[in-house]
Amino acid sequence: MKRFFSVVMLVMLAGVIFGQDSSLKVVEDFEPASTNQPGREYPMVNTQGCVRAQIMAPDAQYVQLDIGGVKYDMVKDENGLWTGESAPQDVGFHYYQLNIDGASVPDPGSMLFFGACRYGSGIEVPAPDQDIFAVNDVPHGHVHEIYFPSESTNTSRRAFVYTPPGYQKEKLKRYPVLYLQHGYCENETSWPLQGRANFIMDNLIAEGKAKSLIIVMTYGMTNEISFGGLRNFDIKPFQTVLVDELIPYVDANFRTLANQENRAMAGLSMGGFETRLITLNRPDVFSYYGLFSGGVYKPEDIKEHNNLKLVFISCGSKERPDGVKNAVADLKKEGYNAVSYISEGTAHEFHTWRRSLNQLAQLLFK
Amino acid sequence: MKRFFSVVMLVMLAGVIFGQDSSLKVVEDFEPASTNQPGREYPMVNTQGCVRAQIMAPDAQYVQLDIGGVKYDMVKDENGLWTGESAPQDVGFHYYQLNIDGASVPDPGSMLFFGACRYGSGIEVPAPDQDIFAVNDVPHGHVHEIYFPSESTNTSRRAFVYTPPGYQKEKLKRYPVLYLQHGYCENETSWPLQGRANFIMDNLIAEGKAKSLIIVMTYGMTNEISFGGLRNFDIKPFQTVLVDELIPYVDANFRTLANQENRAMAGLSMGGFETRLITLNRPDVFSYYGLFSGGVYKPEDIKEHNNLKLVFISCGSKERPDGVKNAVADLKKEGYNAVSYISEGTAHEFHTWRRSLNQLAQLLFK
Repeated sequence: MKRFFSVVMLVMLAGVIFGQDSSLKVVEDFEPASTNQPGREYPMVNTQGCVRAQIMAPDAQYVQLDIGGVKYDMVKDENGLWTGESAPQDVGFHYYQLNIDGASVPDPGSMLFFGACRYGSGIEVPAPDQDIFAVNDVPHGHVHEIYFPSESTNTSRRAFVYTPPGYQKEKLKRYPVLYLQHGYCENETSWPLQGRANFIMDNLIAEGKAKSLIIVMTYGMTNEISFGGLRNFDIKPFQTVLVDELIPYVDANFRTLANQENRAMAGLSMGGFETRLITLNRPDVFSYYGLFSGGVYKPEDIKEHNNLKLVFISCGSKERPDGVKNAVADLKKEGYNAVSYISEGTAHEFHTWRRSLNQLAQLLFK
Repeated sequence: MKRFFSVVMLVMLAGVIFGQDSSLKVVEDFEPASTNQPGREYPMVNTQGCVRAQIMAPDAQYVQLDIGGVKYDMVKDENGLWTGESAPQDVGFHYYQLNIDGASVPDPGSMLFFGACRYGSGIEVPAPDQDIFAVNDVPHGHVHEIYFPSESTNTSRRAFVYTPPGYQKEKLKRYPVLYLQHGYCENETSWPLQGRANFIMDNLIAEGKAKSLIIVMTYGMTNEISFGGLRNFDIKPFQTVLVDELIPYVDANFRTLANQENRAMAGLSMGGFETRLITLNRPDVFSYYGLFSGGVYKPEDIKEHNNLKLVFISCGSKERPDGVKNAVADLKKEGYNAVSYISEGTAHEFHTWRRSLNQLAQLLFK
C-alpha cells in the first residue's frame, strides 16, 4: 500500500503545481471539438480555449489530461467517468494525450494526427480566422496519395499531392508546384491533415486570392527514426529523394510547369531548416522560398541566387518575431523581394503554419 | 477497499474464463506487427498468430489486451511495464484495443483504423498470401481524396478514388469503374487503409491479372451516426448520394467509361447489403455485382437485369460458405454468370474481403 499512497500524494502535489489556475472562472459554453471522432461529444472546447476531456475508467486511481506540456487532473464521478479541463490554450491545433494510471494513451474521443513522433490525439481550439481552412461550399481540389520509386533509399515512398479544382477537367493546363515540408517528428500526413493545406488552397483559389497550383508533401526525415536531434542532421539523403527522385516523378506524372520559375519550396520548423539547406545547395531548382518558424536567410546566403523571386519568412508572435522581422528587413535593404509574416497569438504550432501557408500562397507565381 | 478487492477478484475470474489457453505453448518468435506506428516494437505477432501487447502503466491495477471479443490479462513487471498475449488469431487484419483499469483505449503502438464505429487500433496477423496486398516494386496507382458536392445531404462528401498506374500519363485513355463499399461502422478510409484496395490492384495490374480500372470508395452510412441496426435501414439516402451525385461527379472529373457495361458495384457486409439493394432498385446502372460476406441474390431477384455480366458472391470459410455456394449454384442453374469464392480460414474480417476483391478484380470488365 505504500506505493499506492505515494502515488496519491504525488497526484495531489501535481494537482497543486500543474492544476488549472484556480483564479480562472471557467465559462460553461463547451462544445464538441471539430477534431473529434464521428459522433463523439468529448473532448470539448469553450470560448476561453479550455479543453475538457472525459473518459470512462472505473478502476483508475488517477486520470490526467496532458496538453501543452501540462498534466491536468481529472475528477471521477460515482459511475467511474473522469472529467477535467485544461487552462486556456492558444487558438488553433494542439497535440495532446490522456494519462491513465501512468499510461500515456490517445483519447478515444479524438481523431488521430501524426506529431510528436506518433499518431496521437489532437484538438482544434476555434480561431477567429478558422474559415481560412474550413470545408466551404467551393470547388475542391484532390489530394492524391502516391507512392514514388526511390532508388537512393530502395523504397516506394509516399507523398500527398494536392491538385487544384479543375485539374481533372482541364486536360491540357499545366500548373506551378509548391514542395511543402512538415516539421520534426511529423510526417507527410501532417500538412494535409492538421495543416489542412488542401482546404486553405481551395478557399484561396475560390476567392481569386491565389493562383491554381499543385502542392507536394512528402516525408522529410529520410534519416529514419533516429530522431536524434538536428545538430548532426545530414540533408543529403532527403535532398536526393526530393530533388533527384520526387521532382522528376511529379513532373512526369502530373501536368506541372516543370521549371525553376514555377517551383517553390517551403517548410515548417525542421521543414524550414530543410528548405533553407536544399535551396542553398541547389539554387537552380526553386524560385520561391518559404520558412515557417524555421530559420532565416541572410543576404549573403543567397547573393548568387539569380532566379530568386520571393523569400517568405514567418513565425508566431509567441516565438521570436523580431528575428523574422529583422532578417526580412536586412533582405529588403539588399533589394530582395522578402516578406515577413507574424501570426498573432500563436506559438510553434500548426495554426501559425496554416496562416503562413495562407499568406505565402497568395504571393506565389505572380 | 471493498471495491478494490471486488475488482481484483473480477480480474482473476476473468483470467480464468477469458485468459489464454494454458495448453498452448507460445512460440517465442514474435516480431513487430506491420500495422505498428513508425519505429514501434509492440504490438508483436508470432507464427501462431498470437498477439503480444506491451504498455507502460506503472500505477494501473490491471491491463488487458482486448481482441476478437476476448480480454486477455497482461502482467506487470517491476518497472510498471505490462505485457501479455492473446490466443492465436486468424490470419489477416483485426481491430483491437487495450483496457487500462476499465478504460478502453487505443494502443499507442498501433496505427489507427476506422472500424467498430471508431478510429482505433488494428493489427495484421501475417497470412501466407499477404503478398497480394504488399507494397511491391511495381508501378503504383494514386488514391485521390476528393470532396464531391451532395445536394441531397447539403454537404461536401468525401470519397477516395483509386486511379491505376499510367492514368496520369495516358491523357486520353478512359477506364471502367468499380464502386466499392465498406461495412457497418466502417467508413470510406476502411478499403484504402485496412482493405489495401490500391495495393491489391497495383499488384494484379502489374501481373497482367486484372484490367486497369478506377475504384471509388465513399461513406455508405448516410443515415449518419444512428448506428441503430440494419432492420430499419433505408437505402434511399445513400442510393441518391451514390447514383445521382457521386457517379455523375466521378464521370465528370475522371476519365471513366461512363456507361453501364463499364460500371461495377461491390461491398463487404453492410456494403454488400447496400450493393444488393441499389442494384435491385437500379438495374440500369451497373453490370457487375459483388457481395462480400453481404448476402446473396436469388435468380428471381435479377431476372429482368438484361445487362448483367457477373454476379460474384463470397465469404470466409468461418462464416456460412454453404449459403454462398448454394446461391451461386442456383444462379448458374438459371444461366447466370455467377462465381463464388470462399476465403479459407477466415471469418467476417478484412482478410476475407481483401481476398474477395483480389478475386473479383480478376473477373471485371473482361
